[in-house]
Amino acid sequence: MRIIELNKSVTASNDLDAEMLRAELKEKGICLINLMSSPGSGKTTLISRLIRDMNEEVPIAVCEADIDSAVDAERIEALGAVAIQVHTDGMCHMDAGMTRRGLEGMNLDGIRLAFLENVGNLICPAEYDTGAHINMMILSVPEGDDKPLKYPLMFEKSDVLVITKTDALPYFSFDTEKCMQRALALNPNLKIFPVSAKTGIGMDALETWLKGRST
Amino acid sequence: MRIIELNKSVTASNDLDAEMLRAELKEKGICLINLMSSPGSGKTTLISRLIRDMNEEVPIAVCEADIDSAVDAERIEALGAVAIQVHTDGMCHMDAGMTRRGLEGMNLDGIRLAFLENVGNLICPAEYDTGAHINMMILSVPEGDDKPLKYPLMFEKSDVLVITKTDALPYFSFDTEKCMQRALALNPNLKIFPVSAKTGIGMDALETWLKGRST
Repeated sequence: MRIIELNKSVTASNDLDAEMLRAELKEKGICLINLMSSPGSGKTTLISRLIRDMNEEVPIAVCEADIDSAVDAERIEALGAVAIQVHTDGMCHMDAGMTRRGLEGMNLDGIRLAFLENVGNLICPAEYDTGAHINMMILSVPEGDDKPLKYPLMFEKSDVLVITKTDALPYFSFDTEKCMQRALALNPNLKIFPVSAKTGIGMDALETWLKGRST
Repeated sequence: MRIIELNKSVTASNDLDAEMLRAELKEKGICLINLMSSPGSGKTTLISRLIRDMNEEVPIAVCEADIDSAVDAERIEALGAVAIQVHTDGMCHMDAGMTRRGLEGMNLDGIRLAFLENVGNLICPAEYDTGAHINMMILSVPEGDDKPLKYPLMFEKSDVLVITKTDALPYFSFDTEKCMQRALALNPNLKIFPVSAKTGIGMDALETWLKGRST
């Protein structure tokens, strides 16, 4: 497993770097998705399921960003997808320059969907444009339906909200309708997909939507 | 519900501010606990349980720090404890100056245990001394037993780890022994309490320990 040790990008403008990266990837036919959530919401489990279901049709690459360890990238690589682990030198988010360095460490020939699995954090990653074409956030059922009230920026900056671990709904007091209403009040354009990556329920709709974005 | 809007403390040294706050609170017989975790790990639920079980014997005050909303402080106040909500102006952590301002907004006469419920974030709060006497972190079962590998600093900086939502163990693949080993490898002095604030299992040991610290 290749691991890249990153440190803070020193550039004049992260927004400009992000625009350039976005344009270059578009040129290559690669759709980059910035996946953000709290720690333990199921980012790697969701990506693993997408790889199993879609990788043959839509080749996937994954850049795993963590403060430490390589457990996530090892899980992804074992599934046969292109993967790299980057370490953020303690930093709580990824910026466009760091994302570029991660992507440059992989062979992206033939790749159509690239995921940046951002550092587990529901706050800081929302403040940095990574150069992704789509900002996708996860909220897992055990975290509670009040999260849009407490972390509004993440919901405002996301294009897609995936509500994960819906198989656990019987064991937690999570009101999916109320959660969706709260999220849509912050961001009326938010696409919302409730799924269980464990049982597969709801994955079809998300995968159909992703295939539409990767062409 | 009183809400204080904070912004970044402008002081020469957060560490010095923290030492001063810690000494002042000790003088007043108040033990301050800085409670940190990911969003949705159950910080407010744990504090609510402690209030119900202990507040008559050991009066409790709670400073709720969030980016937005007052839902947590409202929950706490409804239980009869002293509470205040602070908003962090988008910031992802609390420092000692912000903590002082929160505490100064409450009537602490007779209080023996004060909780700072930090912003839900497993990264940035670990980097700032708030002036607390005890750093307590929560890891909830649905987040997974690999979190010590990915967020080592939080485990290193904490005095106490409370593993919450143990009632959900049958529904998640969470190896409590392995999680404890990983946490202790980072911090051999860590006190660990597995609990369910919902069913009450394990709360006795934590409460006995807390009572010992509040005298």
